[in-house]
Amino acid sequence: MKAYKKLTEIFHKIDKIQHAITFLQWDQLVMMPPGGNESRSQSLAELTTLCHSLLTSAEVGELIAEAREDHQYDNETQVSIKEMDRTYSRAACLPTDLVTKKSLAGSTCEHGWRTQRDENDWEGFLKNFREVVTLAREEAQARQEQSTIHFETPYDAMLDLYCTGDDSKKINDIFSLLKNKLPDLLQLAVEKQPPKTPLPQGSYPTEKQLGLNRKLMEYLGFDFSKGRIDLSLHPFSTGDLGDQRITTRFTDNEFLEALLATAHETGHASYESGLPIKFRGLPIGRARNMCLHESQSLLFEKHIFLSRHFFTFFFREIFTYFPETGALSAEQLWQNCCHVEPSYIRVEADEVSYPLHVIVRFEIEQDLINNTITPEDIPEIWDEKMFSYLGLRTGNNHRIGCLQDIHWTDGSFGYFPSYTIGAINSAQLFQAIKREYTDWPTMLEKGEVAFIREWLDKNIWKHSSQLSSQEIMNRATGDETAAQYLLNHITARYIDPAPM
Amino acid sequence: MKAYKKLTEIFHKIDKIQHAITFLQWDQLVMMPPGGNESRSQSLAELTTLCHSLLTSAEVGELIAEAREDHQYDNETQVSIKEMDRTYSRAACLPTDLVTKKSLAGSTCEHGWRTQRDENDWEGFLKNFREVVTLAREEAQARQEQSTIHFETPYDAMLDLYCTGDDSKKINDIFSLLKNKLPDLLQLAVEKQPPKTPLPQGSYPTEKQLGLNRKLMEYLGFDFSKGRIDLSLHPFSTGDLGDQRITTRFTDNEFLEALLATAHETGHASYESGLPIKFRGLPIGRARNMCLHESQSLLFEKHIFLSRHFFTFFFREIFTYFPETGALSAEQLWQNCCHVEPSYIRVEADEVSYPLHVIVRFEIEQDLINNTITPEDIPEIWDEKMFSYLGLRTGNNHRIGCLQDIHWTDGSFGYFPSYTIGAINSAQLFQAIKREYTDWPTMLEKGEVAFIREWLDKNIWKHSSQLSSQEIMNRATGDETAAQYLLNHITARYIDPAPM
Repeated sequence: MKAYKKLTEIFHKIDKIQHAITFLQWDQLVMMPPGGNESRSQSLAELTTLCHSLLTSAEVGELIAEAREDHQYDNETQVSIKEMDRTYSRAACLPTDLVTKKSLAGSTCEHGWRTQRDENDWEGFLKNFREVVTLAREEAQARQEQSTIHFETPYDAMLDLYCTGDDSKKINDIFSLLKNKLPDLLQLAVEKQPPKTPLPQGSYPTEKQLGLNRKLMEYLGFDFSKGRIDLSLHPFSTGDLGDQRITTRFTDNEFLEALLATAHETGHASYESGLPIKFRGLPIGRARNMCLHESQSLLFEKHIFLSRHFFTFFFREIFTYFPETGALSAEQLWQNCCHVEPSYIRVEADEVSYPLHVIVRFEIEQDLINNTITPEDIPEIWDEKMFSYLGLRTGNNHRIGCLQDIHWTDGSFGYFPSYTIGAINSAQLFQAIKREYTDWPTMLEKGEVAFIREWLDKNIWKHSSQLSSQEIMNRATGDETAAQYLLNHITARYIDPAPM
Repeated sequence: MKAYKKLTEIFHKIDKIQHAITFLQWDQLVMMPPGGNESRSQSLAELTTLCHSLLTSAEVGELIAEAREDHQYDNETQVSIKEMDRTYSRAACLPTDLVTKKSLAGSTCEHGWRTQRDENDWEGFLKNFREVVTLAREEAQARQEQSTIHFETPYDAMLDLYCTGDDSKKINDIFSLLKNKLPDLLQLAVEKQPPKTPLPQGSYPTEKQLGLNRKLMEYLGFDFSKGRIDLSLHPFSTGDLGDQRITTRFTDNEFLEALLATAHETGHASYESGLPIKFRGLPIGRARNMCLHESQSLLFEKHIFLSRHFFTFFFREIFTYFPETGALSAEQLWQNCCHVEPSYIRVEADEVSYPLHVIVRFEIEQDLINNTITPEDIPEIWDEKMFSYLGLRTGNNHRIGCLQDIHWTDGSFGYFPSYTIGAINSAQLFQAIKREYTDWPTMLEKGEVAFIREWLDKNIWKHSSQLSSQEIMNRATGDETAAQYLLNHITARYIDPAPM
């Protein structure tokens, strides 16, 4: 029993250093003046190296092996050991020189990409990207071979970093239903929607927008004694138990985008704030995976905030802050947020076409890592898939095609699916909540969200990594992740909306 | 030569962790929501322990001994080794159980003091304070015995933590001149000054005050690409090379106090920002001591900002932000900042009586640590000295007497003198600057401060800890720290002001 005790001490120590890294990174993106960058980078590198060497020490490997063989541990402890092993293996399975080469190649490729994208320079990008792919294949193979978990393909080992527990076979099954149904739904939604009414032209100053976004967070149940909202270049969410920090950004002539981003990040922060204190600092106490994390952010953004009921309620607040919005009805403003239109850019996509963008990427990266296509093949395949799923041709315009995303530039293959598995999970969870609370429309019309938070706390947040994501989904909704829930949501919102 | 190389690696590593501690503490006081306190405290404790064990390892001790014996090093490296030794000895000379006991007794005493002060409960305070004094005496003795530097008395070893290099004999000499001259000057100043005109009643909102304070910082040469100003409960200054952060606080019905505090903290930040990059992370690269640090803050506050020339210039900015101040002349507003009046409370004292407050404390703490008086003796001695130096009797009103300061509660004996040595140094440095730039009044009347920053950069900041403070003062002003410069400044400002 001593091995586990010693392991918890080491993981707690790592967690305390990770806390420092978390808030120094937040500060770097939110507060730090440019002059601080050099010493900040050096400090972060030192702390990261320290965490890595504490985690991957021979001692931790031996203690885990010892703990796994000891069958006197209760079930909860065994799960905790398994999650420690997962964390340890992920960090320790790669040879040091591969990690170094990967980091270098990733930095070079990402750096080059920032201008190559703007210049539509696929050939230039390819020169750096080939090395990223070669190393990612090596990484995937090493992860597959070294892990105590069985992965069917090398790509599955990469996928597991983000969609932990959900394998590519499952995701392929889910995505084939979406591929089959979404293109028609997309066309129908476009045809059925009313024309988009533009926002009243005006100036929406930062200070007032910040007030309005705080108001939204309060209604969504964010506890400001345990968190903050600030401004940054890109919205994100980070923190530690008791101190969740989200960021957003404002443009002066528009206010809806920030509200959507704030609702989204509030979902991420809520998941983190609900993790059980009992397991603080241990792998078993962490959020399960990115598919569930994204389900929480999308549930807050697409299902709570963009429910017609809550939106109509909150419209009154918007009107108080920006009386000029009175020129539009709540319904018109809502339509503005929910306008559907196939387009080339993933991050600007509506929720009907978004999954098709993800599927394009998933299918390509899967084949790329499993070595059935080459980097050179990407543009042609991209063009074909975009045409087949979204009816759009990218041709040689890589800027709005395969050069648009940052993810692949540093070798983060396996991340994309979590966006869409998250979207499905959010629809599926919200469906279960509506089943349990039949008066949900009345509650949301009054801006009451506490019942949803309580349900999520009990059914998602408090499970942390104690169960697999499919076990969590099953217990919460009576079903494993199933694409049909997202299709139902899309149909209900865009094709056959219920009368208000 | 290898020993020194290895030492620099260890000190750089410690510095990178110290960077994390610095900004996590800043965040704790300025940004962190209350819920973050538990995990923050744990993370800080972990990092502090880590720094301490890296610094006090047997390896560092051996490397320093080895490096000190190697006479092949050039002079600069020898100084660097000496400063490493100082840092190492300070941390390593105390037995672990003394550090633990001291920390516990300090926390208990400080915690109790917060209510005992308000309740004038000297007897209650004494119960905890006796232990603090006993441990501080042990600490002083250990520091005296273990150090490679010679300290004449145990108190000198404590003093060296703050007034590094300036011993109690020197400080006693300086303070006896002040004791001799200041009481009469104080009386004269009170008699000669015009009556105080109160600030126009009004509301001075935080946002506007922040703008005005930023403006002041810009004129004082603060580089906002390498620093920030924020709000906190008490003003302070912290940071690392390239990222200096100062804080201030605002009250709604007053704006002068914040401006003075901002000028003061800008001085501290300027010193830190001017330290040589060459020695970044090494003890030789740090600010010399608190006596010089305080000289920089007081030079910015009392000599630049409160020079009639700069103040008259800046009055136009004040007027722009708060037109209601137009009811007062620049001279009346200036008088408001420079009003002299003997009072019981050190932190509210004017610059004429302030040194007398410090001398009361210095004489008492010196005798206390050198074991010639007991804690029980303090109130009576306090009352006598306050009467003798400031003409005020505290009697049994300890709240405005010996219970007013936080410094002694956790055993920080030896800190007080740096306030007044700093005040002297600031007057002495400003005198040297005025000698070198005879057109200083014209420059300050135009709000130009760059010439002062350049002079300080060359004569103070760039020396970091390469020289002793007296060597620095001597090279900069042609003289060691001498009380006469402060007396001259006081006479010139309060007794015989030159015509404008």
